[in-house]
Amino acid sequence: MAKIKLELAYDGTDFHGFARQRGLRTVQGTIEETLRRVIGQSVEVFGSGRTDAGVHARHQVVHWEQSYGPPPERYTHVLNRVLPVDIVALRASAAEPGFHARFSAVRKTYRYTLQRAPQEDVFTRRYAWHQPELLDVEKFRAAAAELVGTHDFTSFCAASTPVEDKTRTVFDIHVVERGTYCDLYCTGSGFLQYMVRIITGTLVDIGQGRLTTPIQEVLQGKDRRLAGRTASPHGLVLWNVDYGESGT
Amino acid sequence: MAKIKLELAYDGTDFHGFARQRGLRTVQGTIEETLRRVIGQSVEVFGSGRTDAGVHARHQVVHWEQSYGPPPERYTHVLNRVLPVDIVALRASAAEPGFHARFSAVRKTYRYTLQRAPQEDVFTRRYAWHQPELLDVEKFRAAAAELVGTHDFTSFCAASTPVEDKTRTVFDIHVVERGTYCDLYCTGSGFLQYMVRIITGTLVDIGQGRLTTPIQEVLQGKDRRLAGRTASPHGLVLWNVDYGESGT
Repeated sequence: MAKIKLELAYDGTDFHGFARQRGLRTVQGTIEETLRRVIGQSVEVFGSGRTDAGVHARHQVVHWEQSYGPPPERYTHVLNRVLPVDIVALRASAAEPGFHARFSAVRKTYRYTLQRAPQEDVFTRRYAWHQPELLDVEKFRAAAAELVGTHDFTSFCAASTPVEDKTRTVFDIHVVERGTYCDLYCTGSGFLQYMVRIITGTLVDIGQGRLTTPIQEVLQGKDRRLAGRTASPHGLVLWNVDYGESGT
Repeated sequence: MAKIKLELAYDGTDFHGFARQRGLRTVQGTIEETLRRVIGQSVEVFGSGRTDAGVHARHQVVHWEQSYGPPPERYTHVLNRVLPVDIVALRASAAEPGFHARFSAVRKTYRYTLQRAPQEDVFTRRYAWHQPELLDVEKFRAAAAELVGTHDFTSFCAASTPVEDKTRTVFDIHVVERGTYCDLYCTGSGFLQYMVRIITGTLVDIGQGRLTTPIQEVLQGKDRRLAGRTASPHGLVLWNVDYGESGT
């Protein structure tokens, strides 16, 4: 058996998320179906993590095992001829036997994009959350900085999240303004369900003066209701998955 | 009767072009239908020019006459609540009686975007023409410069164009590289059918070494077959319409 690592990008608009679901168009399902056609084998594809419905990926990583197939360096070309237009294979390579797209990842970065002009930009409406209301970027930035570090993120994940240990480490959050856009880059060891979207929604609520509870209190309260809105999925992009020395 | 000038943007992907066509979704048809609902009047909407199917507009201008309706400064808000997501009203104002969206325009700028990376970017696939082949940008730029001026553009328009006088003035063409993208901005007094797309396709063919006829010969031959490909509509954006002193 050979293990293949594939880096890919997708526009999440028309997918019901990453994870395969019967009868629905998903990223995992589409890649598995494409591989079945291309290599004539049913393989199980593992991703670095699931992205929710509507969330995009600039750099997602998956792997699978196959008993035969084209040489890895040919895969990108072969797959891109067959994949639908909203998934692009970026790079394929032979993976070490111990590699796992999810468990070998040491760091992930998500980017969340806000658009702050009075009118929504038709060309970015699939990739940016339109927030025409006045937003104090300095307040937004200051609150973001307080989330960096190792915390129990219970207040910043879906109330229904079944995971017991909700402690995660956020290595870095930075906010970049470019014209009427505002990008929030969030890098961490791993993220809970909706975590980046709740972080973003909360920072927007703080920046717009709708939420005044200090971030430290929201964290310490360990209660989803203390945080702000869940930002819309379409502004979120899985920006990068980092495997340390061995990979990207 | 009052005359209203409206500036708008649209994503051309899902429109059969600007001009109204029975039974097809067009920009003009959609605006007229929206106005019928909003002001309860059938008005005829005039655009600064027609954009082809799949071509976008960052800044298109239209006008119409109405016997009653909301004050112009309210129009943007009123229309954006009703317009589909792929059209955005940017600004509305009362126009001088002599104003005509098409005939008062003194200058128009189109932007054509190429994406030159090996793999297509999923996030710009609706707005950039993917050209992974090697392209010599200096050749592309030099050929572009030769198109500036007043010329008979017969070689650079659809062979079926019914207009008799194919002389147009191109005031300026400039090429901007940003990362793996290349933008061609083309400003002129007016453009013939497919003109910017044939200019772009020809420059790409020259830059890729597929066409070696000098631009002057292509112009002087007055034959569409001497020029290169017609670039795909989806890379083209009506960037700006200029009305001189009186308008934008």
